[in-house]
Amino acid sequence: MSAKVGVIMGSKSDWETMKLACDVLEELQIPYEKKVVSAHRTPDLMFEYAESAASRGLKVIIAGAGGAAHLPGMVAAKTILPVIGVPVKSSNLNGLDSLLSIVQMPGGIPVATVAIGNAGGTNAGLLAGQILGAFDPEIQARVQARRDRVQQEVLESSDTL
Amino acid sequence: MSAKVGVIMGSKSDWETMKLACDVLEELQIPYEKKVVSAHRTPDLMFEYAESAASRGLKVIIAGAGGAAHLPGMVAAKTILPVIGVPVKSSNLNGLDSLLSIVQMPGGIPVATVAIGNAGGTNAGLLAGQILGAFDPEIQARVQARRDRVQQEVLESSDTL
Amino acid sequence: MSAKVGVIMGSKSDWETMKLACDVLEELQIPYEKKVVSAHRTPDLMFEYAESAASRGLKVIIAGAGGAAHLPGMVAAKTILPVIGVPVKSSNLNGLDSLLSIVQMPGGIPVATVAIGNAGGTNAGLLAGQILGAFDPEIQARVQARRDRVQQEVLESSDTL
Amino acid sequence: MSAKVGVIMGSKSDWETMKLACDVLEELQIPYEKKVVSAHRTPDLMFEYAESAASRGLKVIIAGAGGAAHLPGMVAAKTILPVIGVPVKSSNLNGLDSLLSIVQMPGGIPVATVAIGNAGGTNAGLLAGQILGAFDPEIQARVQARRDRVQQEVLESSDTL
Amino acid sequence: MSAKVGVIMGSKSDWETMKLACDVLEELQIPYEKKVVSAHRTPDLMFEYAESAASRGLKVIIAGAGGAAHLPGMVAAKTILPVIGVPVKSSNLNGLDSLLSIVQMPGGIPVATVAIGNAGGTNAGLLAGQILGAFDPEIQARVQARRDRVQQEVLESSDTL
Amino acid sequence: MSAKVGVIMGSKSDWETMKLACDVLEELQIPYEKKVVSAHRTPDLMFEYAESAASRGLKVIIAGAGGAAHLPGMVAAKTILPVIGVPVKSSNLNGLDSLLSIVQMPGGIPVATVAIGNAGGTNAGLLAGQILGAFDPEIQARVQARRDRVQQEVLESSDTL
Amino acid sequence: MSAKVGVIMGSKSDWETMKLACDVLEELQIPYEKKVVSAHRTPDLMFEYAESAASRGLKVIIAGAGGAAHLPGMVAAKTILPVIGVPVKSSNLNGLDSLLSIVQMPGGIPVATVAIGNAGGTNAGLLAGQILGAFDPEIQARVQARRDRVQQEVLESSDTL
Amino acid sequence: MSAKVGVIMGSKSDWETMKLACDVLEELQIPYEKKVVSAHRTPDLMFEYAESAASRGLKVIIAGAGGAAHLPGMVAAKTILPVIGVPVKSSNLNGLDSLLSIVQMPGGIPVATVAIGNAGGTNAGLLAGQILGAFDPEIQARVQARRDRVQQEVLESSDTL
Repeated sequence: MSAKVGVIMGSKSDWETMKLACDVLEELQIPYEKKVVSAHRTPDLMFEYAESAASRGLKVIIAGAGGAAHLPGMVAAKTILPVIGVPVKSSNLNGLDSLLSIVQMPGGIPVATVAIGNAGGTNAGLLAGQILGAFDPEIQARVQARRDRVQQEVLESSDTL
Repeated sequence: MSAKVGVIMGSKSDWETMKLACDVLEELQIPYEKKVVSAHRTPDLMFEYAESAASRGLKVIIAGAGGAAHLPGMVAAKTILPVIGVPVKSSNLNGLDSLLSIVQMPGGIPVATVAIGNAGGTNAGLLAGQILGAFDPEIQARVQARRDRVQQEVLESSDTL
Repeated sequence: MSAKVGVIMGSKSDWETMKLACDVLEELQIPYEKKVVSAHRTPDLMFEYAESAASRGLKVIIAGAGGAAHLPGMVAAKTILPVIGVPVKSSNLNGLDSLLSIVQMPGGIPVATVAIGNAGGTNAGLLAGQILGAFDPEIQARVQARRDRVQQEVLESSDTL
Repeated sequence: MSAKVGVIMGSKSDWETMKLACDVLEELQIPYEKKVVSAHRTPDLMFEYAESAASRGLKVIIAGAGGAAHLPGMVAAKTILPVIGVPVKSSNLNGLDSLLSIVQMPGGIPVATVAIGNAGGTNAGLLAGQILGAFDPEIQARVQARRDRVQQEVLESSDTL
Repeated sequence: MSAKVGVIMGSKSDWETMKLACDVLEELQIPYEKKVVSAHRTPDLMFEYAESAASRGLKVIIAGAGGAAHLPGMVAAKTILPVIGVPVKSSNLNGLDSLLSIVQMPGGIPVATVAIGNAGGTNAGLLAGQILGAFDPEIQARVQARRDRVQQEVLESSDTL
Repeated sequence: MSAKVGVIMGSKSDWETMKLACDVLEELQIPYEKKVVSAHRTPDLMFEYAESAASRGLKVIIAGAGGAAHLPGMVAAKTILPVIGVPVKSSNLNGLDSLLSIVQMPGGIPVATVAIGNAGGTNAGLLAGQILGAFDPEIQARVQARRDRVQQEVLESSDTL
Repeated sequence: MSAKVGVIMGSKSDWETMKLACDVLEELQIPYEKKVVSAHRTPDLMFEYAESAASRGLKVIIAGAGGAAHLPGMVAAKTILPVIGVPVKSSNLNGLDSLLSIVQMPGGIPVATVAIGNAGGTNAGLLAGQILGAFDPEIQARVQARRDRVQQEVLESSDTL
Repeated sequence: MSAKVGVIMGSKSDWETMKLACDVLEELQIPYEKKVVSAHRTPDLMFEYAESAASRGLKVIIAGAGGAAHLPGMVAAKTILPVIGVPVKSSNLNGLDSLLSIVQMPGGIPVATVAIGNAGGTNAGLLAGQILGAFDPEIQARVQARRDRVQQEVLESSDTL
């Protein structure tokens, strides 16, 4: 089955965080593709990727980057699909620069921004699942099942304090 | 036609920003509903709203709040629908508190966060349109038409420098 | 004797900090209960906990959470008891997000916020003791005794420079 | 009836914010006293005030200050009563300095910190009411009544969007 | 004479700041062109502009933008010319977001970042003049003359205290 | 010879930083005393120390503290001597809270604030030396000699790149 | 009588803040001189000023600047006298840049930093007075008299709440 | 061949970052010189270095410093050449102080600021190469070749996810 979600990242070093998005997509049985696409070092590839995304059947793009993180916003500028931005933790400013570079988009081109770092990686996969799930009961059921499982884990964790 | 998008806000004072989301939804001809729902002052209403949202036919919820902005995250905790969070500009910290309260969600419950303030209001409406548009060519076409129009405005604005 | 203070936390990973509050409560001989209650992953449990707290005899609730820390504020919205919020240190922003998410509550629903991290854990226990102590001379005497002991330790520490 | 709550502030210019605490205390029919007490300009008065507070019958102290806001923490160091700190908005850093100076107390001496500025002023009064209310059903009932009224106002505000 | 410096900005609202760069270029008698080029709303125009800049004879590009300011970095990714980035003051975060979005470029693609706001506008023009002046004694002499004049103004300003 | 400089700190854990001030004072042959004095845990000792400082012959007080660092400002409120404040690095906010708590004093009571952490420890000793040296040529000569030595070290360090 | 304190500032626009330092010096009857000296626009004048300050009889230098505020630190590098730095409020970052540029000096060259903006202006004058007063009983008496007067004003201000 | 680029740094401890600039200059075959020049500890050397830079044949100066980083701005004040500033990561504030001290220059004296830390070190070398390359086709070709190589590395890195 062709990919519904594209997971891209600005550098291979973002993989630790972005892999968490892929893990969730696999758990939700959502077909996806993954790729290193750098806004600054492969700008033409980025534009081609974004421009062709909708016609290739993607429904959502997840883009992670750190520092002056331009990838999510620039991809959003070149596609009509919803783009989820993951602010990868940066080495000096702990991802605050990544966050502001991604979330503070001007009116006209939104990026659906999630949390800095690994929580954001996981949540990007879940948000993609919830978007697809709003139009696909099977996916939605799997998101719900994951939530139920996590809730159960929390309930049981009190016993171990 | 029943509402596809629910626009809620923590206080009537958020309306200036949240109205911009509604303006976009009207422009995109997406049926929506709007309501003041306060996480802290009407918590039960918030839970009822979130719990019933999917069954009432909503596909996306847009929630705006300022300061210790708990509305988007708590609604997200109580619905399986994608939730877009708008960090409303706060009076003392300029919305930085709103932004961090909304975006830094733990792994498990994502909120699709947009920019602080009015740009975020507009972009929340557009992001909802892009999510719906990924599954509805007519809405997608209207989002594209809006983009084309805005692009044209930018191109023409150089002449007036 | 039934618990006078409820100590809750959003995740088992907050226990290192929240245990310090429990240590103080034990030292002050104040009966307490402890539980993992997640605003986002167990929202219904959170509401039940908060709603029943006063009738179960609790006088103070201590709630710790990190990142987009909604637990203290949401519990405060659902109980008339004083709620002490502990901003747990977060992995990326060092607890600044936790602090702002907890302290910047809108007018109407206060949270008594203490310091980020372990100092806050200890002080949450002490603040609960001081609140109870204002109405219970024995507890107040124990708080005073602890202060006297700590003061003595400081006085003696100069000799070891 | 003798004062149960002492409301102090570092400068007369803090009165705009601290008056909101007094307004709430009057609404809750809690007897209080108010005074300008500066940590830096009247340090001896501050110590005398804090030292005598418990014996004069106060149960809670509310202290507001801005900038390098030392008043709440120093009063807390000199009394066994719970101290609520209000970070008054400062002219240059918008109260972020006030907030950190008040909330980041070392383990041993807690300050119950509320929001920056006017929301904090109102919430300081409410928090004092909730603390007293935990041991006085009449005050608690008045806090609850105020909440019910505010909730009703929120519910009705949707109609005016 | 053909333009040596290209002055571009993400929005017509950036003109107040970017005009200051143009004023300096005129004072230094450096031929320049100016244009509104939005990274997010006219991405293709941005790429064309950047790609053709060197072959059209430009030696330096000055790019100003605010918020999630991607224009300077993306232009830098598409040209081999030095790019000067001006962080335009943003409405909510005072240009801190603009600054971090522009300056925190990853290793490989530099942007020569100047100060936030109007000081940055002026200095972008001067920096372009100093770059060109390093290879053109006449321009360098004009930059020096401007400095001498400003120095004289400072020396005389003491008399008016 | 009696102490000319008093070096105090809020906690024994500040000693690593404050020892650097003492090292400089020894190098400059300035008699000094050192002591742990906590604003929050030994407030009376702090007041006694500050009140008696001038009559005991001290000329300068160096006070180091971290977090909600009230020691320097409160000592300054109780003595007419110049007080140098050292913002000790805090565990969660890296000393930004310490810095703002110390430097943002209201008009009327200054604290001479130096850098966060160990650089501040060293510089506090030097600043005390420069203050005393302005009225004592021998001390001033020793400060100058230390500067000359450091300058020489810098000049030689280029050879080792 | 020759000047004991030199008051310099980076720009005539800093005068509003720096005038407050001069007002205090006049009140304390301390002879002073004032001058605009820009680190960046009149660097040679700055060096000459700093180098000759001690031999001209100055005992303390007060230097105010905003933004990338290099004046206090560079003057400190060129004189053995104590230098007080005043972080003037900047137009975009509210003086946070000024503060960090002044206070974060490396080990070896201290700057005695006071608060951002007008409080800092007043306190710079007072700190100079306290330094001189430590070696001149008449000046110290005047500083004390000013404190007594301010204390009295605070004590009386409670009556006007 | 005489040096075209001068690489200076405020302390030998900045070498780790500044070496990356030198590595790039070597790769681009641009002759350069390197030196430790401290604004605060060797101010006269700094002025001599800056004043003689242009006449010695330098075209660009790269200056790195941390904390209250005055070196780039002060060198810029004393030369007509373009100065690139590298904010070296500082031990307490992660280079945010370095960045603001370097980039927030007042109108009149620009510093071309690059990213905090090692990315900035690399990019300073590249920016110097791009400036020289705008007037030297061979250097420009080497910068382009480096870009092409890096782009190829990114393209290939996707295969290793």
